[in-house]
Amino acid sequence: MMLKIAVLGCGRIGRMHAENIAAHPRASLAGVFDIHRPAADEVGGKLGVVVFDSADDVFSSAAVDAVLIATSTPTHADFIEKAVAAGKPILCEKPIDLSLERVRRCAQTIGATAVPIMLGFVRRFDPGHRAARDAIRTGDIGDLHQVVITSRDPGMAPVAYMEASGGIFRDMTIHDFDMARFILGEEVTEVSAVGSRLLNPSLMERLGDYDTVTVVLATATGKQCIINNSRQAAYGYDQRVEALGAKGMVISENRRPNMTTLHRADFTGSGAPLLNFFIDRYAEAFSAEISAFVEAIESGNPPEVGFEDGRKALVLAEAAIKSVAEGRTVKISEIG
Amino acid sequence: MMLKIAVLGCGRIGRMHAENIAAHPRASLAGVFDIHRPAADEVGGKLGVVVFDSADDVFSSAAVDAVLIATSTPTHADFIEKAVAAGKPILCEKPIDLSLERVRRCAQTIGATAVPIMLGFVRRFDPGHRAARDAIRTGDIGDLHQVVITSRDPGMAPVAYMEASGGIFRDMTIHDFDMARFILGEEVTEVSAVGSRLLNPSLMERLGDYDTVTVVLATATGKQCIINNSRQAAYGYDQRVEALGAKGMVISENRRPNMTTLHRADFTGSGAPLLNFFIDRYAEAFSAEISAFVEAIESGNPPEVGFEDGRKALVLAEAAIKSVAEGRTVKISEIG
Amino acid sequence: MMLKIAVLGCGRIGRMHAENIAAHPRASLAGVFDIHRPAADEVGGKLGVVVFDSADDVFSSAAVDAVLIATSTPTHADFIEKAVAAGKPILCEKPIDLSLERVRRCAQTIGATAVPIMLGFVRRFDPGHRAARDAIRTGDIGDLHQVVITSRDPGMAPVAYMEASGGIFRDMTIHDFDMARFILGEEVTEVSAVGSRLLNPSLMERLGDYDTVTVVLATATGKQCIINNSRQAAYGYDQRVEALGAKGMVISENRRPNMTTLHRADFTGSGAPLLNFFIDRYAEAFSAEISAFVEAIESGNPPEVGFEDGRKALVLAEAAIKSVAEGRTVKISEIG
Amino acid sequence: MMLKIAVLGCGRIGRMHAENIAAHPRASLAGVFDIHRPAADEVGGKLGVVVFDSADDVFSSAAVDAVLIATSTPTHADFIEKAVAAGKPILCEKPIDLSLERVRRCAQTIGATAVPIMLGFVRRFDPGHRAARDAIRTGDIGDLHQVVITSRDPGMAPVAYMEASGGIFRDMTIHDFDMARFILGEEVTEVSAVGSRLLNPSLMERLGDYDTVTVVLATATGKQCIINNSRQAAYGYDQRVEALGAKGMVISENRRPNMTTLHRADFTGSGAPLLNFFIDRYAEAFSAEISAFVEAIESGNPPEVGFEDGRKALVLAEAAIKSVAEGRTVKISEIG
Repeated sequence: MMLKIAVLGCGRIGRMHAENIAAHPRASLAGVFDIHRPAADEVGGKLGVVVFDSADDVFSSAAVDAVLIATSTPTHADFIEKAVAAGKPILCEKPIDLSLERVRRCAQTIGATAVPIMLGFVRRFDPGHRAARDAIRTGDIGDLHQVVITSRDPGMAPVAYMEASGGIFRDMTIHDFDMARFILGEEVTEVSAVGSRLLNPSLMERLGDYDTVTVVLATATGKQCIINNSRQAAYGYDQRVEALGAKGMVISENRRPNMTTLHRADFTGSGAPLLNFFIDRYAEAFSAEISAFVEAIESGNPPEVGFEDGRKALVLAEAAIKSVAEGRTVKISEIG
Repeated sequence: MMLKIAVLGCGRIGRMHAENIAAHPRASLAGVFDIHRPAADEVGGKLGVVVFDSADDVFSSAAVDAVLIATSTPTHADFIEKAVAAGKPILCEKPIDLSLERVRRCAQTIGATAVPIMLGFVRRFDPGHRAARDAIRTGDIGDLHQVVITSRDPGMAPVAYMEASGGIFRDMTIHDFDMARFILGEEVTEVSAVGSRLLNPSLMERLGDYDTVTVVLATATGKQCIINNSRQAAYGYDQRVEALGAKGMVISENRRPNMTTLHRADFTGSGAPLLNFFIDRYAEAFSAEISAFVEAIESGNPPEVGFEDGRKALVLAEAAIKSVAEGRTVKISEIG
Repeated sequence: MMLKIAVLGCGRIGRMHAENIAAHPRASLAGVFDIHRPAADEVGGKLGVVVFDSADDVFSSAAVDAVLIATSTPTHADFIEKAVAAGKPILCEKPIDLSLERVRRCAQTIGATAVPIMLGFVRRFDPGHRAARDAIRTGDIGDLHQVVITSRDPGMAPVAYMEASGGIFRDMTIHDFDMARFILGEEVTEVSAVGSRLLNPSLMERLGDYDTVTVVLATATGKQCIINNSRQAAYGYDQRVEALGAKGMVISENRRPNMTTLHRADFTGSGAPLLNFFIDRYAEAFSAEISAFVEAIESGNPPEVGFEDGRKALVLAEAAIKSVAEGRTVKISEIG
Repeated sequence: MMLKIAVLGCGRIGRMHAENIAAHPRASLAGVFDIHRPAADEVGGKLGVVVFDSADDVFSSAAVDAVLIATSTPTHADFIEKAVAAGKPILCEKPIDLSLERVRRCAQTIGATAVPIMLGFVRRFDPGHRAARDAIRTGDIGDLHQVVITSRDPGMAPVAYMEASGGIFRDMTIHDFDMARFILGEEVTEVSAVGSRLLNPSLMERLGDYDTVTVVLATATGKQCIINNSRQAAYGYDQRVEALGAKGMVISENRRPNMTTLHRADFTGSGAPLLNFFIDRYAEAFSAEISAFVEAIESGNPPEVGFEDGRKALVLAEAAIKSVAEGRTVKISEIG
């Protein structure tokens, strides 16, 4: 009774997902598709599965129980709509779309569908971040007061990527907006954001974008969450979550490839840098995400992180953009 | 050639300063004064020094080379003016005054005096924070981009103290505003702040104050500094400074009374909590502060942190208060 | 061109190896065997592979390229001899045998065979220990002087297990003897050992065994290696390797399931205990071991850790036993 | 009611003690003496105290309540005998003498004196090591089983020093022998030791000494203690104490001048090396030692670490020397 999952999109992330599905004890890879055929052929050949000729073939195939959408962002909403129409459960990479308007139309189109839709906010499945969340929920730190999310990429993405990314808030901070909601456990009502152009000012100016940002979120009960982002952390992929409560603090710290330390006259510490590549850093989380998808379908429970979570993270991004532009705190109700 | 320093104010901080002066190899304690005579008698008796009958006696005494002002805040500006008039170098506890207007008048009164005035922003002298600052100045982390100052008291101060404190921004964050300027190395131009009432909402509402605040500072070149404060950290006095630059990061971490760790079935880590009391946490810094004061006087160089630094920190506090009240980013030029 | 590996022995370790082989990109599971048929049926059924009726069927099968021996210790030498006779490369769990005499006879029987034999000293493949070894070999710590191996089980094994184990030196320290040789990079010439009965004195006395031991090894050039073992570490499976050299030190520290820390009034540290179970602690190492076996066969190079390494570790165990019994330093030449 | 303590010996250690006594709230410096008069003049002049013409003048002075002996080792026993005769409490730097025979004669001479004698095993007063000892005594780790003392000097001492030192076991390990007794809480009955010549083989051979040693101690109940020493740790003064018990482990870790960490592409860790100089590393311990001496005299209780502790540490050194020479475990009863 293996769940047969097809993967749409055979880029770096799609390929990784395809391998994880193939290795999963209760799922099998039902085939792959990519608009760029050679990419699909390579993955399909390596993993010994069928290569679909079109996305429509995937949605109409009786051999496909569920789909994982890892294609380019502009296709996400269309594919979600088609998969819902075909009754196939969906695990879709973030974001649903860069346009909040398109997300709204997609929501209207799919309506109150019973088809499970899971959004790929993979960090929720990281053992460390999840242990922090659990410590909060079980009362280990008392009432939650203040959250600090540090999230810095190891290095600037390629220019072409950034041009199509929708800007740092929609592309990079979006993960942190979801993490903030995951950790806070209640909805954000106000957003203030500050953006700077420090790494590549001329490019950022041309794109109307920022490379270094700070966002402060607040909930109706006064809980605060600080997100700090940089497009470049020379020391590796910096991914930390800290939460202060009335009775203590919990921190999900950075991870390294090993725990070996070197001690010499000039320094003592870790010879190994932080895990640098998001696929390595979140390797366990990507596996756990597939498991959570499989379990949701098996159990009939809604996925832990769904379409509405995708929309809400995008709303926070819009609010942050507005806050930077207007130099003021923006209420979520202004975006809604 | 010992520098003879008198201490005004024999409360908890004044007494500690008196002991540090007495133990200093190039300074001696010239006597103590307190408006509450028994307090002065106790300290004077214990350290074997003269007890002055009045503050004026201190300023006029030929046996006093310099003064350390550790009296209550409302007396600071007056005593600074009198010490300047008497030509006696001053080490004054922060803040100069809770009123920016009073600080301005004090500045006018003392004018372009040659008398050295040092402000007691003791954290600048902490070996860890200073090592972080030095690492930045020597280029270890490249151009500075983002600073995170975590500064949380171990527990709520007494109500009476908070009523007279001028509010969290003028009382507690003021240290972090100075630390921000120390680390950033350039002036702050914009302030956005968020305040919450989470620990004692009814008291905070009555005082028009906050117990949990986040402040985001930005400089003209776009450097960002995030300050997060809470009046209560159940795990101890949380004092960290983190700085991200183009080439790396430096962190001044918390300190403990010892480096002993305990490993048991239920947890592994430090049995000893963080140093809990500011006088213990910053013990080395308080000593180093006295040394810096003595050296400034000996060398004739201006003290590293002076009157104008005291004023600027207060300006940042005013801007933060305005930012919370108006829900918008406040430019320093609006306050200045 | 997948390498088809059969697994003999479907206990806890055999099953884990079978799963790792099935998941390996360049190996496939050729079938399983266990003298207890239901155990083999369960693993074979779950992984969808053939279940062999006898060990001889495995050795004679044309569908088997290589074998992994994870049966009970007394069968190891026999199966090695049969696999060599059948020309099938071998990955054999440690030890070769509890009797040095039987190991010698096995060596004589197989002679100078060209069939690759790899011994399952899995810790050599741990990323942390290997990074330490690499740091030494590349000169990061200069000439090696002193090694400290801390190796403590999370808890006492069952009595039946210990009765058949051959004693702590042959059963538990054997891994550390191999680690010592791996780290030292030269042969041990002298052994002194001390054994205590602290956890279960009456059982240990009955078995003539020890639960807490310290062994000091020395090489001809004077390099020292200290091994400390306990059958019980209440805080988890303690596995550390430290090496001191002329220019510095390298330490492979313990590992945890996540990097989340908890900070409360009574302690600050890791809420998560050390990884407790050897299969979890060395999960990456067990995978890497299979890869190393596959690569050795593919390349035709001898496996990194072979029959002779198995024999030498056992010689060190014999020397340690003699040292405790006689209260003196034992030269390896006395055992050899 | 200050305790007036005179210091004999104005070298590096004597000077430090003199300063600590001068700064102590309940002690005062009664004067100094050194056989090399200029050294005494310098310290006496700086601290404003009398310089004695001879050691006998110190012992006979009515202005001296107690003495601290920090002269060269060969004078210790004589001065202890004279101070006892004069009825003056003694804090004497380790060792009592390099000759166990001389120590025995000294013991006979002073007999069952009521004059307090404290031995300067300063490490017992280190906050970290003491917290470890306390954790053991209060049952935090259950019954004690295994202790590991890592004790490595930052660099080789001068040749002249080593020639007069009595060898590594009497000079350097002696501190660890005392620490072992402090942590174990029961007497050592057996000693096995291994010595190597790795840092400077020709010098060590000439001196009949070793630069890298490992000692394993055992008590009658089977508790084990491993000491590892090196004359050179390139990364700083390595001073750790680890204790394993039935319920857990406690570790007193190394100390650094600050807690600032640097994170760069090539490494992440502490920019600051370990505290390198024993006077810095054990600064708090040296102060606490003076306090313990003062308190013992004030209270009339025997000092925590006395003459007999000094003798027993030397016995362990003799046993270790014999063990290396004879390649066997030596019973303490053989040394007596």
